[in-house]
Amino acid sequence: MIIIKKRLKSIKLKDIEITDKFWRRYTDLVPNVILPYQWEILNDRIGEAEPSYCLRNYKIAAGEEKGQHSGVVFIDTDVTKWLEAVAFSLETKPDSKLEKNADEVIDLLGRAQQSDGYLNTYYTIAEPEKRWSNLTEGHELYCAGHLIEAAVAYYDATGKDKLLVIAKRFADLICIVFGTGEGMLKGYPGHQEIELALVKLYNTTGCKRYLDLAMYFINERGKVPNYFLMEIKKDNHKFIFDEFKDYDPVYSQSHIPPRLQTTAEGHAVRALYMYSAMADLAFEYDDRELLKACMMLWENIVTKRMYLTGSIGSSAVLERFTTDYDLPNDVNYSETCASIGLAMFGSRMSRIKCDASYFDVVERVLYNTVLAGIALKGDTYFYVNPLEVWPENCKEHTSKAHIKPVRQKWFNVACCPTNIARTLASLGKYIFSLDEDSLYLNLFIENKSNIKIKGVNITTKLLTSFLYDGKSTFIFNASKSVKFGINIRIPQYVKSYSIMVNGEKVDKSPLKNGYLELLSNWKGENRIEIAFEIKAEFVAAHPEVRADAGKVALVKGPIVYCLEEKDNGKNLSSIIVNPDTPLQECFDPDLFGGTMAVKFTAKKITDEGWGNELYRLAKFTTVPIELKAVPYCFWGNRGKNEMLVWLKASI
Amino acid sequence: MIIIKKRLKSIKLKDIEITDKFWRRYTDLVPNVILPYQWEILNDRIGEAEPSYCLRNYKIAAGEEKGQHSGVVFIDTDVTKWLEAVAFSLETKPDSKLEKNADEVIDLLGRAQQSDGYLNTYYTIAEPEKRWSNLTEGHELYCAGHLIEAAVAYYDATGKDKLLVIAKRFADLICIVFGTGEGMLKGYPGHQEIELALVKLYNTTGCKRYLDLAMYFINERGKVPNYFLMEIKKDNHKFIFDEFKDYDPVYSQSHIPPRLQTTAEGHAVRALYMYSAMADLAFEYDDRELLKACMMLWENIVTKRMYLTGSIGSSAVLERFTTDYDLPNDVNYSETCASIGLAMFGSRMSRIKCDASYFDVVERVLYNTVLAGIALKGDTYFYVNPLEVWPENCKEHTSKAHIKPVRQKWFNVACCPTNIARTLASLGKYIFSLDEDSLYLNLFIENKSNIKIKGVNITTKLLTSFLYDGKSTFIFNASKSVKFGINIRIPQYVKSYSIMVNGEKVDKSPLKNGYLELLSNWKGENRIEIAFEIKAEFVAAHPEVRADAGKVALVKGPIVYCLEEKDNGKNLSSIIVNPDTPLQECFDPDLFGGTMAVKFTAKKITDEGWGNELYRLAKFTTVPIELKAVPYCFWGNRGKNEMLVWLKASI
Repeated sequence: MIIIKKRLKSIKLKDIEITDKFWRRYTDLVPNVILPYQWEILNDRIGEAEPSYCLRNYKIAAGEEKGQHSGVVFIDTDVTKWLEAVAFSLETKPDSKLEKNADEVIDLLGRAQQSDGYLNTYYTIAEPEKRWSNLTEGHELYCAGHLIEAAVAYYDATGKDKLLVIAKRFADLICIVFGTGEGMLKGYPGHQEIELALVKLYNTTGCKRYLDLAMYFINERGKVPNYFLMEIKKDNHKFIFDEFKDYDPVYSQSHIPPRLQTTAEGHAVRALYMYSAMADLAFEYDDRELLKACMMLWENIVTKRMYLTGSIGSSAVLERFTTDYDLPNDVNYSETCASIGLAMFGSRMSRIKCDASYFDVVERVLYNTVLAGIALKGDTYFYVNPLEVWPENCKEHTSKAHIKPVRQKWFNVACCPTNIARTLASLGKYIFSLDEDSLYLNLFIENKSNIKIKGVNITTKLLTSFLYDGKSTFIFNASKSVKFGINIRIPQYVKSYSIMVNGEKVDKSPLKNGYLELLSNWKGENRIEIAFEIKAEFVAAHPEVRADAGKVALVKGPIVYCLEEKDNGKNLSSIIVNPDTPLQECFDPDLFGGTMAVKFTAKKITDEGWGNELYRLAKFTTVPIELKAVPYCFWGNRGKNEMLVWLKASI
Repeated sequence: MIIIKKRLKSIKLKDIEITDKFWRRYTDLVPNVILPYQWEILNDRIGEAEPSYCLRNYKIAAGEEKGQHSGVVFIDTDVTKWLEAVAFSLETKPDSKLEKNADEVIDLLGRAQQSDGYLNTYYTIAEPEKRWSNLTEGHELYCAGHLIEAAVAYYDATGKDKLLVIAKRFADLICIVFGTGEGMLKGYPGHQEIELALVKLYNTTGCKRYLDLAMYFINERGKVPNYFLMEIKKDNHKFIFDEFKDYDPVYSQSHIPPRLQTTAEGHAVRALYMYSAMADLAFEYDDRELLKACMMLWENIVTKRMYLTGSIGSSAVLERFTTDYDLPNDVNYSETCASIGLAMFGSRMSRIKCDASYFDVVERVLYNTVLAGIALKGDTYFYVNPLEVWPENCKEHTSKAHIKPVRQKWFNVACCPTNIARTLASLGKYIFSLDEDSLYLNLFIENKSNIKIKGVNITTKLLTSFLYDGKSTFIFNASKSVKFGINIRIPQYVKSYSIMVNGEKVDKSPLKNGYLELLSNWKGENRIEIAFEIKAEFVAAHPEVRADAGKVALVKGPIVYCLEEKDNGKNLSSIIVNPDTPLQECFDPDLFGGTMAVKFTAKKITDEGWGNELYRLAKFTTVPIELKAVPYCFWGNRGKNEMLVWLKASI
């Protein structure tokens, strides 16, 4: 029997400051590089990048400029996701220039909003009479979701409610358009997103109708006959995207009701945004059936359909999940946004179930795929995240055209850059979980925070070198005596650990859902020293994963390593490693702003004896080779080159 | 200096009877199963298959039925390729019922032909005013090419010229529509095919204008500005295929003039049909530049871009060539038709250059990919020919949707079935090459033939068990004394060989372009005994082929072997073989109508110690496994199962 007792909270961004050297190289980029760069993009002022037309569309919709709508139908979300990222950034660190730009955009959105609350530039400009007629592809509800998320974040960050009022007006319209009542549209989003946004709007406003609408969308979805199939069969249906002419409801998780789904199917971003909403709703309604579905979906992903790097979506065609253990490394999609969705889902599940193990996955996602999604300079992005790249054959107009061997300035469909921005800007929310009498430490990222437990102010400081030596120190100061539990996540990759509290070794008690609980009457300054044994080591994938059979990958804690051509020469596929080879961890202060690298010896098949022939009698000659592996998240930061995560093992 | 001295001829099908047990299981299907089945398909009488609409379109075009055009724009070629196959079959073995059906179809084509000679059901029915306006996608010239090929074959086989007259009328129209003269269209085919057909029409009719038109198409192609890009830019251009909206001239080998091309690019079938025509034209015009281009293109394919099975086209997107050494085994396209094109190109090159080595590739193509394209029962087909199949993840609406784990009854685009039919029906043309004073034995396929050299009738009989023990006997009887050379191809896979002529061992003279020449005054019955040493052995791919690095494949002579789940269990990717393991060849009389199988021992990674986790510390346990490999061409004839060609090697 599943019981949803409580949901842990996250810390407010204004109460936490990230001080971590590893992470600051990225989080500092948010206000300094990423948001200003994206601002230029939204204004079409980056010469080398294709124009985004984002703000121009709003100006046309507001009647302030003349012209056609430009860009994809959901291009508005580039603006609203940017606004959400700005909100998180402002909450962390005020910035009057950024806030002024955001306020101006919000004013513009207000002017572009229609008198009945409707707000969407594509339908307002291009097809005003076609509102809600193409939920399959039109993305109006998806766009509304990101608008709502931005509004909630901006209100939380600044206390200003202008965008919140705009979002509520639009949400109120959606509440009367969609539902089971007479004359209402019994539809639901072609791209899920609004569901989780409506839960946030409910949590901020207390208006239950938003929550009910979210639940309606989940409950209506997947009913027979399928809404989308009916919609596209209509005589006057005009397709927006050619690939939907042969629409399969699995693509949008509308093949069966979400609460009956047990395997992760279809478009990965749609899936994970929906699962996140399902987790929220399971808590809000104490809906145990829905929670059970979430648990089964999570289990299916993390035990059958997830890359070592925390990425998901094996098929480039339709950017989707495929089948259990189908994890090709060189043609996969593994969209950055899908991994962000997995982090969103995992952190929700962890907080509902008070279970640290979800953070093993969230951590894997953040340290690998999310960070790989952005250049160290913060100005270019990966949309697709393969685990094996041979740049010469990532050729336009072929099956590998989606694989980019170098990060891109922007994209025609640019969901990932702003998604990375809002994720980095809100990283602080992942580090702790909180309830009324407990603090949970999920991620070992250096930070300072101010929290309140049972009315007592507590300042905390986490110092860590855990990526290098497994060690962290958590120092906190309680202004007066207060009894509460400090729960430290013991990651699954930790071989052994020891904890000292104020110089005294703590007896190991059994973990509670992956957390070690330290319950005490705390007062004044306390010092918890955490020592994890974390080794660089080779891992293997389940033998059913055909693509990784007989191969190993190097990991240390949450960090997945890869080989790059820059360090190891060409043709990484010809390398064969003995999984028992000694691994030499070394800090390279000059590489990627300072990183741990791992050196080891292997052998490499040579082309000795080969001439021009393509096939010949099998006779392999090998030479020893010294290799240097670097964190996967940093790959591709030194120009176009080969990259490989899974190495052949000598077996 | 390249000199085109002569072109060897092929034997006429009426002069050769294939008696080979291995091949008869397929060639007997042509008149007994394949052509009657395809006849039912053309008439839309196969209930389980989608209607083809083929003959119905012609009836509508002839004004004898009412209705719309149905099927793809080039669906006419299903009929004309069937007619060509019927012609070859009739030439081999008369069949009055088949001939009657064919004659009726030809009459219908005559009635569907327009008064000016134009013949194409799509444009006649659907867009009569749009003739020649969309060469990029419209396939009118492609369809004309197959019409011409069928006409030439039917005339050769039956002496009836009705279809030839129809084809000539259409060709004559094309001759006045296309060219560099004033008011003529300076276009060329979006899908090459008519070029090689026009050479055949010239060879049959002696009308030089057909040859000149073929040369014009080759010479005009690839000029700047690109014809197709100009065409699709026109205001009124309506796309037929969505994927061409972002047209890349490389796709249709129109990026540069064909004679300047040095690497095989773009859509593989288009490419190979064009290269075949280039070879023909190089001979006809003694055009050494064109021949040099053919040689470079051939070299590029067979040393960089061809699968072990003789298939080509690494990318499913656009069914195309990609880059050197890019040969993925589980997502490739490797269209059956493209391999047929390679056999067409190779046999032409062999005959122009009098070089046996081209037949090493032609033989590889025929024994592996062409045969894999059709079921042993002759009623189902593969379009796509991967070298590694995991049926569970060949899922609709994913990147692997093109991979079918079982052969299909028919296809929406059904080029392959009729292409296989005409190739099997004309197999006899590949076996010998001839000139005025020499006979060349290219393929070791049992047959009886009647040939004439220097006016002397010679009957020949080839007996062979070369797939099993490397032995063949060539018996021939010359009605009177005649001096000529018998040239026996010594395949590159032969380790050593010995030849006995009438009981006497022949001293080995140096091979001439891969042929051993036996020049003598022959009279009466002669017996040449050929003993090749051919072993089952493991081969490796060039180390630059990332997909095959550290892997081996089993071959014996021209036959590529594979593992099937049926014989070896699931998860073939987990098998690791020592390339030095003994190979036990054994004949299995019950398998696939009798086949050589190869047994050997390997090890397999087990899932011992694995639970539900997807990744864990690398620790491989293996168990010994007895394996049985079967010829690749027979795979998938026992239901849906895993298949694998390239096995991991222990290195």
